[in-house]
Amino acid sequence: SREVLTGKNREEPNILERFIQPCLVELLGSTLFLSIGCLSVLVNPHGAGPLLPALAHGLSLAVVISVLGNISGGHFNPAVTLSVVCCGGLTPILLVPYWTCQLSGGMLGALLAKGLADEESFLNHSGAACMVDGGTSVGKAVGVEIVFSFFLIFAVVMGAVGERSRTPLASYSIGLTVITGILAGGSISGSCLNPARALGPAVVSGYWDYHWVYWVGPASAAILVSLIYR
Amino acid sequence: SREVLTGKNREEPNILERFIQPCLVELLGSTLFLSIGCLSVLVNPHGAGPLLPALAHGLSLAVVISVLGNISGGHFNPAVTLSVVCCGGLTPILLVPYWTCQLSGGMLGALLAKGLADEESFLNHSGAACMVDGGTSVGKAVGVEIVFSFFLIFAVVMGAVGERSRTPLASYSIGLTVITGILAGGSISGSCLNPARALGPAVVSGYWDYHWVYWVGPASAAILVSLIYR
Amino acid sequence: SREVLTGKNREEPNILERFIQPCLVELLGSTLFLSIGCLSVLVNPHGAGPLLPALAHGLSLAVVISVLGNISGGHFNPAVTLSVVCCGGLTPILLVPYWTCQLSGGMLGALLAKGLADEESFLNHSGAACMVDGGTSVGKAVGVEIVFSFFLIFAVVMGAVGERSRTPLASYSIGLTVITGILAGGSISGSCLNPARALGPAVVSGYWDYHWVYWVGPASAAILVSLIYR
Amino acid sequence: SREVLTGKNREEPNILERFIQPCLVELLGSTLFLSIGCLSVLVNPHGAGPLLPALAHGLSLAVVISVLGNISGGHFNPAVTLSVVCCGGLTPILLVPYWTCQLSGGMLGALLAKGLADEESFLNHSGAACMVDGGTSVGKAVGVEIVFSFFLIFAVVMGAVGERSRTPLASYSIGLTVITGILAGGSISGSCLNPARALGPAVVSGYWDYHWVYWVGPASAAILVSLIYR
Repeated sequence: SREVLTGKNREEPNILERFIQPCLVELLGSTLFLSIGCLSVLVNPHGAGPLLPALAHGLSLAVVISVLGNISGGHFNPAVTLSVVCCGGLTPILLVPYWTCQLSGGMLGALLAKGLADEESFLNHSGAACMVDGGTSVGKAVGVEIVFSFFLIFAVVMGAVGERSRTPLASYSIGLTVITGILAGGSISGSCLNPARALGPAVVSGYWDYHWVYWVGPASAAILVSLIYR
Repeated sequence: SREVLTGKNREEPNILERFIQPCLVELLGSTLFLSIGCLSVLVNPHGAGPLLPALAHGLSLAVVISVLGNISGGHFNPAVTLSVVCCGGLTPILLVPYWTCQLSGGMLGALLAKGLADEESFLNHSGAACMVDGGTSVGKAVGVEIVFSFFLIFAVVMGAVGERSRTPLASYSIGLTVITGILAGGSISGSCLNPARALGPAVVSGYWDYHWVYWVGPASAAILVSLIYR
Repeated sequence: SREVLTGKNREEPNILERFIQPCLVELLGSTLFLSIGCLSVLVNPHGAGPLLPALAHGLSLAVVISVLGNISGGHFNPAVTLSVVCCGGLTPILLVPYWTCQLSGGMLGALLAKGLADEESFLNHSGAACMVDGGTSVGKAVGVEIVFSFFLIFAVVMGAVGERSRTPLASYSIGLTVITGILAGGSISGSCLNPARALGPAVVSGYWDYHWVYWVGPASAAILVSLIYR
Repeated sequence: SREVLTGKNREEPNILERFIQPCLVELLGSTLFLSIGCLSVLVNPHGAGPLLPALAHGLSLAVVISVLGNISGGHFNPAVTLSVVCCGGLTPILLVPYWTCQLSGGMLGALLAKGLADEESFLNHSGAACMVDGGTSVGKAVGVEIVFSFFLIFAVVMGAVGERSRTPLASYSIGLTVITGILAGGSISGSCLNPARALGPAVVSGYWDYHWVYWVGPASAAILVSLIYR
C-alpha cells in the first residue's frame, strides 16, 4: 500500500515492512539493475570499448538506489550487504535473505537480458558473463575487483550508512564509482564488483572460468572496508 | 503572470492554475523534449550507436521535468499519466486533456524536428520513427518496451508522486532511466517508452510498421507499476 | 574580501557589491566558460562528432553558474540577461554593463583559446567560430538557434529567477540544455545560443559569415521566453 | 570508530580527529583517485581521444570529495591545499602533512595502476605520466595547466571553503572542472592540474620530461585564486 512504500507513518513497523518488503525490493532492484547491465553488454559491439556498459551499469544502479534505497538501503550486491551488516547498518537477521534475493535477482536479470537480446549477441558475449581478459594474469583481475569493489563499498558505507551522513546524492556517487570502475578496469577483469552480477550470467550461459575471482575480490573488499570503518 | 508560474501563493487556486496551465505545460514540455529527441536521431550518423540520442532524450527529459514538474507533475508521456492517475497522483479529470496535450506535443515536436533537419537525414531515418530492428522478433521488442517503460514509470511514481518522497533529484533519476533504456535496448526496439514519442514521427513520416508495440508496451508497464504500487 | 564573495552579511550592500562585483564576475565567468568551449572545438578532430564540445560547453557552464551564480545571477550570455531583465530578475541599470562584460569575456575567451591551441587547429576550425553547415539553409540554422536558445533561457528563467524556485540544481539543468542543444543541433548551426560565444571567435578569426544568425536567434528566443513568462 | 568518521559529536575534537585522521583521509583518497585516473589512461587505446580518461578522473574525484570531504576538506591535490590555506580554509600547520600525504598517495596510486595494468600498456603510455604533446610549445602547455588549474581551484575555494557556501553539489562541480579540463586541454598538456598526479607516474615510470610544467602551472593558479579571493 502507498503508506508502506513512501513513508514512516507508524512508530512500530510490522514484520511486513521491516523484513518482507526490503527483501522484495532487493529482488526487484537487483533484477532491474542487472538485466539492464547484462543487456548493455550483449548489445555492445565487440571493440566498442567500455563506455556504454559503464554508463548503463552505473546510471541504472544510481536510479534503483535513489528510488528504492529508503526501503531496503539499496544494496543490490551481496558484498555491499556483507559490509553494511559488519558496520552495523543492517540487522544480521537479514543477511542471508538479502543474499538470496540479490542472487535470485541476478539470475532473473540475466535470464531477462537473454530473452530480450538476439541469440547471436548472447553467444558472442558468453551471455554477458564477467570474463578475465585473455592477456591478463588472474592476479591482476583479482586486484581490479578488490580495488574497485573497495571504492564502491566505501562510498556506500560512508555515504549511505548512518542516519546523519545519508544524503540523496549518495545514490549518484555510488553509481559513479561503478562507472569509473568499468571505464578503468573493465578491460582487465570486467569490473564486475558484485557476486550477483557474476553468478546470474554464469548460470544462464554456463561460463564459469575464473568465476571465484568475482566472489573473492568483492568479499575481500567488503571485509577491508569494514575494518577501516570500525 | 509570475505568481502563477512560480508559486503557491493562494490557498485556493482557480481553474486556470489547476487545469489549463498544467495542460499547456504538458504541451510545451512534450514539444520541446520530443523535438530534441527526434532531431538527435535525425542527425545521428548511421552506425554511430545510441549514445548521443540516449543523452539527448534523457537529459532533455530531466530538464523539462526539473523546470516544469512543479506545475504539471512533469509527465510528457501518456503512459506515465495513466500510471500516476491510477496511483492517485493526479485527478482523473485531467487524464484525457493530458493525453491530448502530450500527443499533440509529440506531433509538434516531430514536425519541428523535420523542419530543422535536412531532408536527406529525415528520409534516411524515417523521420526518427521508433522502429523494430529487422533482425529482432516482435516479441523481444515488446519485452524491451515493457521492461524499460516499467523502469521509467516506476522511477516517476516512487520519486515524484506523493508529497513526502518528491525530491528535486527525481527529475534527474527519471532522465537517467531513459538514458539507460536507450543504451541497453535502443538497438532492439528503439526504446521509445512513450506513445507520444512514437505517434508524432509516425504521423509526420507515415512510418507505421509495428506501431502498436509502442502503445502496448508502455501501457502494460503503466498498469504493472500501478498494481505493484497499490 | 571573503565576506563580499560568500555572503549576504550586510543589510544594505554597497555599490561595489551590487554593481561592480557582479559585472566582474560576469566577465570572469564568460572568459572561463567561453575559453573552454572554444578550445574544446579547436582540439576536436574533424568528423569526431559533437559529443566532446557538447560536454565541454555544457559542463563548464554548469560549473560557472554553480560557483558564481549567487553573485551575478550566472548569465554569461547577453540573450539570457535580456530575458532576465524583461522578467524582472535584474535591474535594467545593469543590462548594458552585463552585455559589455559578457561580450568582452567572449573575446578574451576566444583569444585565450587561440593562445592555447596550436595554429593548425585554429585555422582548421576557423577559430571555433559558430558556422552554418554548408548543406543547411540559413532558415534551418535560425530555427535551431531559436528553439535551443528558448530551451536554455526558459530553464534559466524558470529555474534561477525568483527567490522561491531558485535551487542549486538549476545550474546543472541549464548546463544540460546546452549539452542537448549541441548534441541535437550542433551539426546544423553549431548551436551557439549565445551572442558572446559567437562574437569572440568571429573577431579573433575574422570569420563573419551568417554572423547575424547568432544574434537574431537568441534574441528572438529571449523575447519569446519573456512573453510566455509574463 | 564510527563516531569519528561520521559525525561531529564532541565539542572539542582531539588530536586524532583534527590532525591524524584528515591526513590519512587525504592519503587514502589520493591513492584511490589517482590509481583510477592513471589506470584509465593506461587502458585507453592510442587515438581513442580523451573522453574516457576525462570521465574517470573527474567522476572519481567527485566521489572521493563527496565521500571524504567532510573529514579532510577533500583536496587530494597539493595546489588546492596551498590555495585553501592561503584563503584561510585550513590551518597552515597541516600544509606540509597534507602535501606529504597527497604526494605519497600519488605514488601509491601510480604503483597500484602499474600493478593492475599489463606491462605493454604501461610502457606504451609511459606509465600514465603527464606529457606535453610533441607538436605543442611548452608555453602553451603551461598556459593550459594554469587556466584549468585556476578553474578547478576556483571551484574548490568558492564551492567548498567557508561554512556558508559549502554544498554537497560542490564535489560534483569540482569533478566537472576536471572533466572539462581534460576534454579541452588533454591533448595539449595532458591537463594534469595536480602535482601529485604528475609526480606519482613520473617516479614510477622514470618519465621526467617537462615535469616542472605540472608544478609551476597549478602553483601559479593556486596563488592567482588566492589573490582574487582575498
